[in-house]
Amino acid sequence: MAGAGAAAFVTQHPPNVFYLSGFRGSSGAVLVERQQTTLYTDSRYAIQAAAEATGAEVQIVQGGLLAAAGKALRAKGARRALIEAEHLSLSHKAILAKQAGSRVRWVAATGVVEELRRVKGPAELEAMRRAARLGSGVFQEVLPFLRPGVRENEIAAEIEYRIRRRGASGAAFETIVAFGERSALPHARPTARKLRKNELVVLDWGAILADYCCDLTRTVYVGRASQEIRGWYAAVRRAQQAARDAVREGMAAGRVDAAARDVLERAGLGKFFIHSTGHGLGLEVHERPRVARGVRDRLRSGETITIEPGVYREGVGGIRIEDDVVVTSRGSETLTTASREFLEL
Amino acid sequence: MAGAGAAAFVTQHPPNVFYLSGFRGSSGAVLVERQQTTLYTDSRYAIQAAAEATGAEVQIVQGGLLAAAGKALRAKGARRALIEAEHLSLSHKAILAKQAGSRVRWVAATGVVEELRRVKGPAELEAMRRAARLGSGVFQEVLPFLRPGVRENEIAAEIEYRIRRRGASGAAFETIVAFGERSALPHARPTARKLRKNELVVLDWGAILADYCCDLTRTVYVGRASQEIRGWYAAVRRAQQAARDAVREGMAAGRVDAAARDVLERAGLGKFFIHSTGHGLGLEVHERPRVARGVRDRLRSGETITIEPGVYREGVGGIRIEDDVVVTSRGSETLTTASREFLEL
Repeated sequence: MAGAGAAAFVTQHPPNVFYLSGFRGSSGAVLVERQQTTLYTDSRYAIQAAAEATGAEVQIVQGGLLAAAGKALRAKGARRALIEAEHLSLSHKAILAKQAGSRVRWVAATGVVEELRRVKGPAELEAMRRAARLGSGVFQEVLPFLRPGVRENEIAAEIEYRIRRRGASGAAFETIVAFGERSALPHARPTARKLRKNELVVLDWGAILADYCCDLTRTVYVGRASQEIRGWYAAVRRAQQAARDAVREGMAAGRVDAAARDVLERAGLGKFFIHSTGHGLGLEVHERPRVARGVRDRLRSGETITIEPGVYREGVGGIRIEDDVVVTSRGSETLTTASREFLEL
Repeated sequence: MAGAGAAAFVTQHPPNVFYLSGFRGSSGAVLVERQQTTLYTDSRYAIQAAAEATGAEVQIVQGGLLAAAGKALRAKGARRALIEAEHLSLSHKAILAKQAGSRVRWVAATGVVEELRRVKGPAELEAMRRAARLGSGVFQEVLPFLRPGVRENEIAAEIEYRIRRRGASGAAFETIVAFGERSALPHARPTARKLRKNELVVLDWGAILADYCCDLTRTVYVGRASQEIRGWYAAVRRAQQAARDAVREGMAAGRVDAAARDVLERAGLGKFFIHSTGHGLGLEVHERPRVARGVRDRLRSGETITIEPGVYREGVGGIRIEDDVVVTSRGSETLTTASREFLEL
């Protein structure tokens, strides 16, 4: 705010609202000023806001949260206010501007709170560790269900049930379960397709525990794999290890991506690695930084990122291995612990 | 588009992308022109897009979906393009504008596709019926778990597991399970709180089956309820019935809200009904129309809405009953079938 010469910052992006105020409801807006943080919510959330938003003044409003924030800016004579270019819609901007009046100049910024959220504090890292432990534990529990005849969406149900039973507030994203040729779709949504013998199985799941996410992927084989598939798996595993080994404070994120990509290229699989190596995670399952080709952004100690290279062969199947790691001054700490061995079930 | 004199419409709001193209992936943008619909997605979704977006030309792009749409508008010499004020962020608008160049005039519209989505066609209604049947069936299955000592998040896990096992792609929203005084929070998120004897239990859950949502709420009592609580329940049930009875093609949505509100006011509970009576649902769990105080919008045959009045007494508990109904020319069809009797477990 000081850098932009702004008297105020407005957000209604839920993870940012939570980060700034402690409020977990889905309908909240936060106005940050030099001396004060105000949470606007509606009457449905009055009790919850009083309990959670202990660091903010709570205002229960009717007729729109951003309208209330805009009116407050007008009443206080604010001249410049920071808004979030990535999260504020054109219509919400119009509401804010209408209520705040023409005296307020808007500075559309990106990543104001996201940059603060990149480096996790000790309590946040502890929450991430617990979430990762919870997510990791589900893997062994689900393996016995992977028998020919079971459906993708049944496995997704088992994973999410076990996530919940272990105390998570829910899945961090729609669980991916992909059998056979469908595992070549990196973002396959589970279907009623049945597992057959001699197929790859990609499982990609995450949990939210005490507001923080984990995100992990394992690939197993049901039956006896060919030498070719074993070779692909081994290459992905080496690529994933190489990328984790490359993580360290001060390292450019793009070099972590390159570490994985180089291994796959040397194995002749480079062109089948069709996405980037990873992404930050925390309150959201996709955060900064991006761990992708050419990213110069340097990793900072306390950032938590995924490392998830994969290979995808259309019509055949895919293999991906994904873990969550914390960047440290000496390297990294891997939070997710599920086995990375090639399992033939 | 014709009304706005626009040559093109751009969206990247996932339910609108699906509605216009058939593509279910989370990363898609659609450009609608007079003669053609184009889906832009990235390489991760190439296989899926080819299979799903059968009504659109699929373009696999690098470097941003909206940038690609913007470039196409420039190449085609478009002069006016419709964009979505409610869904387009300031930064996405900037990307579009930069790539499309200064010749394109932008018309920020609201509800272009949402208005088309309000009235469901026969296939959509059949999908809504199936989703509602699935969601309703879960209620009886979960009742045996409601015993003192069980936790809110365990019940949420059971509900979501059963939704999934019945073939849903997932919960339509984060399942609400609220015990005792927590049931006074209309949007309570499940916690580790244990159920005690003589408490209200509010369950509010939804499922997505074949892309369409259901959304229902039931309130039960564990133990023997006081006359006062029975009276509240009876009033909410009468209010809910009155609102369902008021639904009919041509009726102002606000009159449906008033039908519920009048019953609760006559019972002396009006001030404890702190939200609106309902909302449209379909591809999203909150759609048009709003069924709220003063809304003049007239209901149309084929619209699907929730009817969900409730009373909330801080420190004591809450009661809500919610069903999904289709507006018809003669009245309504209630899709959700779980029992509305006052159950003391």
